[in-house]
Amino acid sequence: MKAAIVGASGYSGEELVRLLLRHPQAELSAVTSRQCAGQTVGRVFPRFAHDALAKTLRFTEPHMELLAKTAEVVFLALPHGVAAEFAGPLLHLGCQVIDLSADFRLKSPARYKEFYGHDHPAPELLEKSVYGLPEIYRAEIKAASLIAAPGCYPTSILLPVLPLLKAGLIKSTGIIANALSGVTGAGRKVEQDFLFAECNESARPYGIPKHRHLSEMEEQLSAAAGEPVVLQFSPHLIPVNRGMLATLYLAPARHFENESQMAALQEQIARCYQAAYSAEPFVRLLEETALPDTKNVAGANVIEIGWRLDPRTGRLIVMSALDNLTKGASGQAVQCMNVLRGFPETAGLC
Amino acid sequence: MKAAIVGASGYSGEELVRLLLRHPQAELSAVTSRQCAGQTVGRVFPRFAHDALAKTLRFTEPHMELLAKTAEVVFLALPHGVAAEFAGPLLHLGCQVIDLSADFRLKSPARYKEFYGHDHPAPELLEKSVYGLPEIYRAEIKAASLIAAPGCYPTSILLPVLPLLKAGLIKSTGIIANALSGVTGAGRKVEQDFLFAECNESARPYGIPKHRHLSEMEEQLSAAAGEPVVLQFSPHLIPVNRGMLATLYLAPARHFENESQMAALQEQIARCYQAAYSAEPFVRLLEETALPDTKNVAGANVIEIGWRLDPRTGRLIVMSALDNLTKGASGQAVQCMNVLRGFPETAGLC
Amino acid sequence: MKAAIVGASGYSGEELVRLLLRHPQAELSAVTSRQCAGQTVGRVFPRFAHDALAKTLRFTEPHMELLAKTAEVVFLALPHGVAAEFAGPLLHLGCQVIDLSADFRLKSPARYKEFYGHDHPAPELLEKSVYGLPEIYRAEIKAASLIAAPGCYPTSILLPVLPLLKAGLIKSTGIIANALSGVTGAGRKVEQDFLFAECNESARPYGIPKHRHLSEMEEQLSAAAGEPVVLQFSPHLIPVNRGMLATLYLAPARHFENESQMAALQEQIARCYQAAYSAEPFVRLLEETALPDTKNVAGANVIEIGWRLDPRTGRLIVMSALDNLTKGASGQAVQCMNVLRGFPETAGLC
Amino acid sequence: MKAAIVGASGYSGEELVRLLLRHPQAELSAVTSRQCAGQTVGRVFPRFAHDALAKTLRFTEPHMELLAKTAEVVFLALPHGVAAEFAGPLLHLGCQVIDLSADFRLKSPARYKEFYGHDHPAPELLEKSVYGLPEIYRAEIKAASLIAAPGCYPTSILLPVLPLLKAGLIKSTGIIANALSGVTGAGRKVEQDFLFAECNESARPYGIPKHRHLSEMEEQLSAAAGEPVVLQFSPHLIPVNRGMLATLYLAPARHFENESQMAALQEQIARCYQAAYSAEPFVRLLEETALPDTKNVAGANVIEIGWRLDPRTGRLIVMSALDNLTKGASGQAVQCMNVLRGFPETAGLC
Repeated sequence: MKAAIVGASGYSGEELVRLLLRHPQAELSAVTSRQCAGQTVGRVFPRFAHDALAKTLRFTEPHMELLAKTAEVVFLALPHGVAAEFAGPLLHLGCQVIDLSADFRLKSPARYKEFYGHDHPAPELLEKSVYGLPEIYRAEIKAASLIAAPGCYPTSILLPVLPLLKAGLIKSTGIIANALSGVTGAGRKVEQDFLFAECNESARPYGIPKHRHLSEMEEQLSAAAGEPVVLQFSPHLIPVNRGMLATLYLAPARHFENESQMAALQEQIARCYQAAYSAEPFVRLLEETALPDTKNVAGANVIEIGWRLDPRTGRLIVMSALDNLTKGASGQAVQCMNVLRGFPETAGLC
Repeated sequence: MKAAIVGASGYSGEELVRLLLRHPQAELSAVTSRQCAGQTVGRVFPRFAHDALAKTLRFTEPHMELLAKTAEVVFLALPHGVAAEFAGPLLHLGCQVIDLSADFRLKSPARYKEFYGHDHPAPELLEKSVYGLPEIYRAEIKAASLIAAPGCYPTSILLPVLPLLKAGLIKSTGIIANALSGVTGAGRKVEQDFLFAECNESARPYGIPKHRHLSEMEEQLSAAAGEPVVLQFSPHLIPVNRGMLATLYLAPARHFENESQMAALQEQIARCYQAAYSAEPFVRLLEETALPDTKNVAGANVIEIGWRLDPRTGRLIVMSALDNLTKGASGQAVQCMNVLRGFPETAGLC
Repeated sequence: MKAAIVGASGYSGEELVRLLLRHPQAELSAVTSRQCAGQTVGRVFPRFAHDALAKTLRFTEPHMELLAKTAEVVFLALPHGVAAEFAGPLLHLGCQVIDLSADFRLKSPARYKEFYGHDHPAPELLEKSVYGLPEIYRAEIKAASLIAAPGCYPTSILLPVLPLLKAGLIKSTGIIANALSGVTGAGRKVEQDFLFAECNESARPYGIPKHRHLSEMEEQLSAAAGEPVVLQFSPHLIPVNRGMLATLYLAPARHFENESQMAALQEQIARCYQAAYSAEPFVRLLEETALPDTKNVAGANVIEIGWRLDPRTGRLIVMSALDNLTKGASGQAVQCMNVLRGFPETAGLC
Repeated sequence: MKAAIVGASGYSGEELVRLLLRHPQAELSAVTSRQCAGQTVGRVFPRFAHDALAKTLRFTEPHMELLAKTAEVVFLALPHGVAAEFAGPLLHLGCQVIDLSADFRLKSPARYKEFYGHDHPAPELLEKSVYGLPEIYRAEIKAASLIAAPGCYPTSILLPVLPLLKAGLIKSTGIIANALSGVTGAGRKVEQDFLFAECNESARPYGIPKHRHLSEMEEQLSAAAGEPVVLQFSPHLIPVNRGMLATLYLAPARHFENESQMAALQEQIARCYQAAYSAEPFVRLLEETALPDTKNVAGANVIEIGWRLDPRTGRLIVMSALDNLTKGASGQAVQCMNVLRGFPETAGLC
């Protein structure tokens, strides 16, 4: 199976290259980037220079017909807004498209307009697209032609929350997500804010209180809850290359007032997570004394989930860690491709 | 005025040395450390080696009588539990004591026992001690002989919350504090968890849900609210040397339901903070578009406070940044000394 | 083929675990560590917790007979001096031993004593052992039972220098190696010098001028030169987790005095490196405009080599980068195992 | 005394602001930056926001006449080539000019053209300008109107080497300088190479073998040696914000062949350094067991110098550490101002 990457010069694109170069079933057949056109993959990304394919495969200008001839699956690792221009034509030419941008993650064009400030450029595709979270939408992904793979924030928040919400174990109100992102989460943006000396020895919130990714998170949470969910979401930038840590504040649906009620609830939560994820190859439920740590998931397509009930406040604290470029972007996209094409879901990801 | 530091070989001790070496009114007259006894300050801390006093002043073993003869003010930069052994004797010998540990920050011995697991070793001193947050207890500090300077977590959380709570602008229930600490916050502990390669490229929660410092934070919050406050507090470790970032989730006392109510509340909050802190030399209230960043307070005895009302959730998000070793420890202790001794409060701190 | 790791709780041991868990021909059958005995690999190293074997394989106390029963190849990831106690007995019991310590890297017991300060505990094994640099000693490794895999400093220096020396292109005198090491190079040593806040924002030389690893480097350089070589070697610690960068100052055997002589020499050097390494899977010769960068080799069993002739000084500057834990330790050891056991040399390493 | 900074928005400019805001004799009267014009200093650099002057002083467009009216001393913190356009007019208008760029550091216009690729724009000023290394040119600085303050690489290399060269203790041939720079050394350049994720976990050489700053270093070394000196200089980038570490390989003028000769030479070197620097407030000669570390000089206008004779190679290894923004740029410029204006040399720098 041949796969192409459009916009492969950013961090997500580079991570896709890394994963596809070693994928047993997929062959990387084309990579595009206007600024790198003409150069080999090994030249642009020296870390792959020892790979035989990377030595010869050259970046090209993006060209729809050529892409469609070269590849059955096309990954779009493009900025928001640009991806939408590629998806329609590529689908029309018969490709399966896995988009890493936010362009096709919402179902509601109105919500899109509210959060992105303009009409959706291809609203007819919103219906068609499938939210690329395999742990939740595996069946739909199998049958999809357009997959909108969610990014690091939604993945780190939705995977821990959705099972609890569906099981009715937590309230759908008052959910708070405090999240920390490594700097590659901002993409390979050449802006002063992301210079080494501006990020090193710095920790800072940003995009508070209305970050764009709230739109997709709330859409997914609402679908799970069966009622509109409003999320409090606070992203922060911390000085790590790769990593995302989410700390989630949740209210159990029923108060627990003594130790035995607490123990019962703990049991329910543990069972809920077990039921949802014990068979999932990429979800790591932490045992009692462990807490997540981004360094344990760096480079892996894994999300770590740990949790604590607090008898003093009655709250449930759930914490998750993932690599923002792998399970939070490109690893997830490859996982979607594996599901879509009937490959073993872990192919190229272990 | 002569000042001594007991336990000066840790990070807080080193920061005290830095601040006292350049203090215009205080003279560093003794530093103690069992492991460094006999060596000069300039030898133990090469960064001070060009200082004339650091070249000659030598670490000694801690010795109560000598300390009392040498210094009028004694700083205790000792681990929890050890400080309590020094405070009483030094007070008895006529010293004024500024303790950087948690030993004298609580008023309630029962609460101490609940959080620290054993009886307080000197409960009679708990009553006497003053909580060393000058912005809140300036008058009491002036008259104190034993000051318990709060650390980085309490400072980063209490300073933003107390004025709102006292003014009745926020509810006393449901307060959540999500905090990120630089690694020096753990002290100069030689443990595997704090090795470079265990912290670099790592972000991780710890001490969840019942961290010991909750005890003093809740005591202070309760005093301000006039009723018991239970706090949700989640500390995290991030790979910066110095820095603390707190993100606080608060519920306004009254719901705002439209833009004009929101504007009115914004006005109230702004006025409340202005009233509390506009004359404070070490509290920096951020203007509308700015958010706190630890790199802006590194090495400074300053706390940055920024905030946002979220019309979607009705919550107030307050964010603060400080240097865990300066305003979060030793700078604060020196500020207390300045207040105590009638020096200009900013002496040696600007 | 079954492999065991003795002393698997350090950084080299952990990297061996990572590489062997995914090795197609080798099966990790035992891991020992006194302090971790009884715990599973997945517990001690959470990053491997999703691996099926890591979930069940438990650390044990080191026990010679058991090891020999369990494994055909035993890796020793032990501190200097301790490895020597294990090698003899394991060899006697029929194991093949790959030692990552410095214990068996020298041929000369006298030289060992000079640099390590005591008699070698098993001098009879020095003769038997093979220096585990496959690019240089591939044939010998195939036939070995005891392999002393060199560490990061020797690898980063010897691979770039040996071919030039053998070809007579550089003088054997005046060689200078200035090297920078990531902090994992010091091992998982719980010492103050390696705490996060002592290494972050720090760059420092150490072990100057007579570092122990000089002994093996000089032995290898001397063998290649056919005469005694004395090396100037300056190690430095820099704040990266994994990475080593060596900058080598070499004198061409013949002066070049004009552009055409320089071009001729460039051609000779390029050919020399091509002849030595163009078929080597783990040596990446950089093209003209590129220079090595540790981030390009992180996690890979690769050494990058770049070079420049300086017409102003007449010197040849050769620079190399590798990951101190992979090509500089455990990757190299696995490469040795592959050679030893007749596996494809890149098995488990690409 | 009033001082202005032209081009104050970069890292050197920001460091000048920091130092001048707290200077007891100088008052910062103007700061210019095209991109920041109209904003207050406190807004552009939040870390100074608590400073009274920073709250009101606004960046302006650079305007010669206004600068000359506002300030007696003007600092130029501009890119190479731009500074030269400002120096002449400002001198003509009666200002004293301290330039932090490389524009006026050379005496020879021919050498300038060789290294910078074009004719010097104001060759008549080259004669007039004084090299702003107070430890070497104090007398000349006192009488200067145009001072060319050297940057981090020259300072870290010249201060350790010049006294030895002048004393004839080392050969003027074969000098090698291997230097590591923190990322602020590159200025606040918004380029991909300096993004956080490109620098973090990276160590890399660059500009090898002919870096532009060689020109000024060789000019100074040659002047000290009384004959042309050719320097081998290898700069590297490492992931620290502030810091420079130079490791220098030098050949003693006379071979030492036994321990007593070595002891004699050690004595001579120690005396030479003592004579040159024991009275210098900003040069810290390290005692025998210590080696320099960038973390010991961060934020200080100090250079640490340590050294070792190597009996095995006969070489002298000298190592130095400084903060590339302080003693390596803006601190040095302020030190020059102090000398120039007859202030205590340490004013505002301790």
